[in-house]
Amino acid sequence: MIQPVFVLSPVLHYENGSMQEKEDSIVTESPITIVLNDEEFATLVCSPEYIEELVIGFLASEGVIQSYQDITDLFIDEPTGFAYVRAKNVNTYNQMFHSKRYVTSCCGKSRQSFYFYNDARTVKKRDDTAVTIPAADCFRFMQAMQQSATLFQDTGGVHNAALCDPNGIVVSRMDIGRHNALDKLYGYSLMHAVSVHDKVMVFSGRISSEVLLKVAKIGCSIVLSKSAPTELALRLADELGITTVGFIRNQSFNVYTWPERIVQEKGGKSSDSQ
Amino acid sequence: MIQPVFVLSPVLHYENGSMQEKEDSIVTESPITIVLNDEEFATLVCSPEYIEELVIGFLASEGVIQSYQDITDLFIDEPTGFAYVRAKNVNTYNQMFHSKRYVTSCCGKSRQSFYFYNDARTVKKRDDTAVTIPAADCFRFMQAMQQSATLFQDTGGVHNAALCDPNGIVVSRMDIGRHNALDKLYGYSLMHAVSVHDKVMVFSGRISSEVLLKVAKIGCSIVLSKSAPTELALRLADELGITTVGFIRNQSFNVYTWPERIVQEKGGKSSDSQ
Repeated sequence: MIQPVFVLSPVLHYENGSMQEKEDSIVTESPITIVLNDEEFATLVCSPEYIEELVIGFLASEGVIQSYQDITDLFIDEPTGFAYVRAKNVNTYNQMFHSKRYVTSCCGKSRQSFYFYNDARTVKKRDDTAVTIPAADCFRFMQAMQQSATLFQDTGGVHNAALCDPNGIVVSRMDIGRHNALDKLYGYSLMHAVSVHDKVMVFSGRISSEVLLKVAKIGCSIVLSKSAPTELALRLADELGITTVGFIRNQSFNVYTWPERIVQEKGGKSSDSQ
Repeated sequence: MIQPVFVLSPVLHYENGSMQEKEDSIVTESPITIVLNDEEFATLVCSPEYIEELVIGFLASEGVIQSYQDITDLFIDEPTGFAYVRAKNVNTYNQMFHSKRYVTSCCGKSRQSFYFYNDARTVKKRDDTAVTIPAADCFRFMQAMQQSATLFQDTGGVHNAALCDPNGIVVSRMDIGRHNALDKLYGYSLMHAVSVHDKVMVFSGRISSEVLLKVAKIGCSIVLSKSAPTELALRLADELGITTVGFIRNQSFNVYTWPERIVQEKGGKSSDSQ
């Protein structure tokens, strides 16, 4: 995109009773409209980087495409903010229900347990517990993600997500939209055929039902967050076999579901997660 | 709703190398499907309280209704999670574009400056600067909102919004969805015919373009946040005449737009904001 991810801008800073001008970095938001097989499909507002990953990850996450190979052509027109996608095997059943799913920001899902139309088809259930990580890795991975995000720590309000393996971060992405950060990772993993089932998803924000479902769609079996999960997310995690770890702060965290994958002996089973 | 806003649940707490069970409060998410004039219109996932306010605020914010009087009947069926609304003067033009607006969570808007179809009709431009607040009120209001939200501070990840006047909080609402908290306030102010132009909106989260537009629709001219604004939000705030104050922490904050309304003499002009 032509727009940068953040801009420097003058602001009035108030401190100790006086106001003075200073320069501050402000994150940008950029709309990207996906035109799918010549029809306007959706508009995402995002941090303007890794747009290709975002578009692919979004379409996969929505169940519109089943694999990266379904995309036959993709052109991002940066100046106008349009992404032109040609795809085969497009799931029109999903499109029928598209308008009724996403409603307010930070929202959008779940009746009964979660059988919204396309979720039931696209989530992957994990019931093996072969992939484990030592408890210490929860801190290590969270710290690694936060360090990789230094640039934006002071602008506030961006979300970070990272795929980790025993060596640390494989790939990390940020976005002003929590779901966009995850969709970018999904797009990346599809484009580069990254095996995800043995990776750990590290996320800066709350684990809502939508975040949990996205992690399930991407295919990870462990999700780490420095924030809290919701009750619905935990019910889904329990059902889908996903280990959720929250409130990773200083030297403590909470394990909410499938604790078998968090191994207490330090370094004891880290080789299992390879 | 039958579901509570949070539940107590056993979690495994890891600290200093050992894991033990403890009880923790977990926020719930609840889907509410709005059926408008016998047609399924949208599904919101929300914290299950003040649903009536949420539904009314959402419909007004979307430009579907123009006033509270447009609603002729409203029935919330709590056990099933449906809200049945009958309304007159429903804006179908808006509905046509509905499916293309909201896309990912924490997202959803803006091309060029912001002329998405219904926004252009529903935002209110504020260009008077008669309403002012003393700088000290930025801290006072933020603190008051945070105190009113004590119950959920430890569950993490809920958003709080409050309407304040010189006496403090008029009404505050929380929700797992940032926009829901604002929509609940909007619904409240419509139902109780609260004059909002002289009130200050205090918000716990980032001021994105969507949040800013919602504040404009509700009709406030000052928005306070402990977090950061986005660059697009600031362009809109500048255009719409809204004062944005961010990063309210300890004894400092930043004023980004329309600083005329933040008065430095302590207590100097607070009576203007009545």
